[in-house]
Amino acid sequence: MTTPAYDSLAETWTRLHRFGHLQALAGWDRAANMPPRGNEARAEALAEMAALLHRMRTDPVLPERIARAEQEPLSELQRANLREIRREWRASNALPESLVQRQQMATSRCEHAWRSQRPANDWAGFLPNLKEVLALAREEATLLAEQTGRSRYEALMDRYEPGLTTAQVDRVFGEVRQWLPGLIVKVLDRQAVEPVIAPLGPFPVAAQRALCEQAMRLLGFDFEAGRLDVSAHPFCGGVPEDVRMTTRFREDDFLGSLMGTIHETGHGRYEQNLPRELLGQPVAYARSMALHESQSLSFEMQLGSHPGFVARLAPLVRAAFGDQPAFDAHNLHRLMTRVKPGFIRVDADEVTYPAHVILRYEIERPLIEGEIEAEDIPALWDEKMMELLGVDTHGNFGDGAMQDVHWPESLFGYFPCYSLGAMYSAQWFAAMRRAMPDLDACIAAGDLGAVFDWLRDNIWTQASRWTTDELALRASGEVLNPAHFRAHLASRYL
Amino acid sequence: MTTPAYDSLAETWTRLHRFGHLQALAGWDRAANMPPRGNEARAEALAEMAALLHRMRTDPVLPERIARAEQEPLSELQRANLREIRREWRASNALPESLVQRQQMATSRCEHAWRSQRPANDWAGFLPNLKEVLALAREEATLLAEQTGRSRYEALMDRYEPGLTTAQVDRVFGEVRQWLPGLIVKVLDRQAVEPVIAPLGPFPVAAQRALCEQAMRLLGFDFEAGRLDVSAHPFCGGVPEDVRMTTRFREDDFLGSLMGTIHETGHGRYEQNLPRELLGQPVAYARSMALHESQSLSFEMQLGSHPGFVARLAPLVRAAFGDQPAFDAHNLHRLMTRVKPGFIRVDADEVTYPAHVILRYEIERPLIEGEIEAEDIPALWDEKMMELLGVDTHGNFGDGAMQDVHWPESLFGYFPCYSLGAMYSAQWFAAMRRAMPDLDACIAAGDLGAVFDWLRDNIWTQASRWTTDELALRASGEVLNPAHFRAHLASRYL
Repeated sequence: MTTPAYDSLAETWTRLHRFGHLQALAGWDRAANMPPRGNEARAEALAEMAALLHRMRTDPVLPERIARAEQEPLSELQRANLREIRREWRASNALPESLVQRQQMATSRCEHAWRSQRPANDWAGFLPNLKEVLALAREEATLLAEQTGRSRYEALMDRYEPGLTTAQVDRVFGEVRQWLPGLIVKVLDRQAVEPVIAPLGPFPVAAQRALCEQAMRLLGFDFEAGRLDVSAHPFCGGVPEDVRMTTRFREDDFLGSLMGTIHETGHGRYEQNLPRELLGQPVAYARSMALHESQSLSFEMQLGSHPGFVARLAPLVRAAFGDQPAFDAHNLHRLMTRVKPGFIRVDADEVTYPAHVILRYEIERPLIEGEIEAEDIPALWDEKMMELLGVDTHGNFGDGAMQDVHWPESLFGYFPCYSLGAMYSAQWFAAMRRAMPDLDACIAAGDLGAVFDWLRDNIWTQASRWTTDELALRASGEVLNPAHFRAHLASRYL
Repeated sequence: MTTPAYDSLAETWTRLHRFGHLQALAGWDRAANMPPRGNEARAEALAEMAALLHRMRTDPVLPERIARAEQEPLSELQRANLREIRREWRASNALPESLVQRQQMATSRCEHAWRSQRPANDWAGFLPNLKEVLALAREEATLLAEQTGRSRYEALMDRYEPGLTTAQVDRVFGEVRQWLPGLIVKVLDRQAVEPVIAPLGPFPVAAQRALCEQAMRLLGFDFEAGRLDVSAHPFCGGVPEDVRMTTRFREDDFLGSLMGTIHETGHGRYEQNLPRELLGQPVAYARSMALHESQSLSFEMQLGSHPGFVARLAPLVRAAFGDQPAFDAHNLHRLMTRVKPGFIRVDADEVTYPAHVILRYEIERPLIEGEIEAEDIPALWDEKMMELLGVDTHGNFGDGAMQDVHWPESLFGYFPCYSLGAMYSAQWFAAMRRAMPDLDACIAAGDLGAVFDWLRDNIWTQASRWTTDELALRASGEVLNPAHFRAHLASRYL
């Protein structure tokens, strides 16, 4: 019972994994270490590697080999791997090279100009570039939709969250949309009468770094297989075998880097605990963007902002910066859970965050489907910000539709993942509490083993073995259900 | 007048340069950043890249393309590049893959066992592994000698110092051997009556790092195109466009990291100032190991230990660690130029260093030529250490023939480059003084521009345009002449 075609595919993907290692490392280094004059050579080296990987993924022998492997006597895990190989192959071969090149030029131009247009609030300058990016994204979406039989916007979402349908997003976001504005008002009323003490800085960077590393240790990050460094935009990079997390420090605020680090630690532990036996194969990679975000938010929101966990953090904060009334555990928890409707998505708290995402989804879906045009964005933005968050963005493009890098970079279809991740994380913790009624007491006692065991068994080691829906069913007994997120917010904020 | 074959070769070497960028970065990261559990995946990724580069360099279309390019109407620079392309091609295609694999296994086994055998002083355990490495090195040397018509040892030296002959090394080392032992005795007598004040530690690592970076700035290192980090074994890595230097810090000694950093800065500036117009092509790479070492030693020994430069360093040292009698410029200079015959090459001062190299040359040349066997090494080592340095190494293998990683790693033919580099650096500064009689006054005044201009014009930007002999002739009016090194030592130490 040999499986020569499958074995040959697995060998190709092992090579892709090894080259991808060098690519990921160079990407992390560019953000964390690289001096400015190294940029051009780095860009050339990365482009050369991208071209090599593209050639390997579009090798004309692959389709016939995939077809033959499907006739071979594969194990269940191998069959799941073959499904993921086929998915990766399809994604790499879906678009004509000329479209890919035009998109690279258009997004590069748009993103580069956006960097100065955004602070200048220059919507008129931004619009023609965005229209060009959008036209090409529609072309891409149309091609992908024809190949997959799905809607155009779905075809774009599929790149980040395989199998996700607009019906599912409409259902979930439609539900949240009904109760979220009311909930926000209630929380604001409640918090208006809660006293909160602001911490007094400055907070020395060396002490912040040590505190972040302590939090990472509490959360089980393996420093023998990863690092924490500094970059302008925090991220979790590197490879599963050597996870490179970054954060950034501000001397006048330590909570930003601390909570950001806890967030990235969730991504990091997912990567560090992917199954090792098939590592390098697509089936052993993280399932999707929404599931990855469900891990970072499990760490930041479910665990990191849990009153029991904050009580463990408080003495570390005092040890780092000296004693202050603000570092009382109860006050720290209030600081971490402060709700404030604002312009900026990345600064938003967990209660208002979904409003930012729903707004973007309600604009970019019809944009891609051709129901509205780029010119319509500002008016829609103003209307929806007022409706969802009561915030006036009229004429403020820089803090409005121009605030994210996603559209200049043509990442249409990505935004929903953020909020789906928040909802999945609430769903995981609801499932944990059903299985372990004393979970909150354990967390308060500093015993996080049960949480990590559940995540390891149900999410991390499952990698891409199942579809997202099946993984959610197996882990929690149901597919995505936003009721758990609502219950989480109600229990924490009301 | 088109040059299609040459252009195609240049394109291949540009791609090699880009992939080499990722390889160099991953190698630097392994030493400077990588956590231990990342090692296996990194080794696999680097092996995959090495295999890709080997396939590119042994592509069967290359020899015919090189032959065609030789008939094309090339500029002088292109012709020099083609010469270097041919040299690289020959080196990559000289050995059968089976020999390369057997060597990799043998050196990996020998080096790995050596790590524990050296501290255990276990010559008997080391010997069979070394004999295996040596047998394969002889096989390699015989093959290379047949292809190049040179002697076996020359063929191995050629990998590091193209064109270097044993006749040249015999002449130079033979000369030095005659006057060096007598000079060492005289210097020791003289220094025996010189008072030297030892610095009092500890020296905080943060202050040491800041001091090293100040020294690098004084020496013109471009931090926009490079970095200083920490690794167990200091080196200068990265790529010409982004130089990654490393050092290591000990709290009880700051001179080691300071002088080591000044040394690596010489390597770093050579790389940072290679000619940009053909960068990526072999003609634009550093000429050779001896020339590279001539730059690090120009910085460490000629400039860094120059009394005028030390007078500029002294106030920085005081600012870093507070005032101490030991930080008087005159005393600092004495500390930096202390001569002490010892067991260990890497700890040796510039006066006794050549004795360590000559000894190794006198052993490894006959070893490779088959005139002696590995069993003969300890007795020869003892005899030559006594003769050259008056040091008794009898029975002390760990601090004797087992001290270097070079033989376990089969780097036969490398050692001479260290001392040739020291001699070239003295020759460069002699040429500078002929051209600029006030050079020492300039250095004392902190004006290093003339030194850097000379090195840039004569060495750095010349890259691999000329053979080493021709480069030396053009730069200094003569090929390697050890009289300048002798004069340098006499003027500094007598």
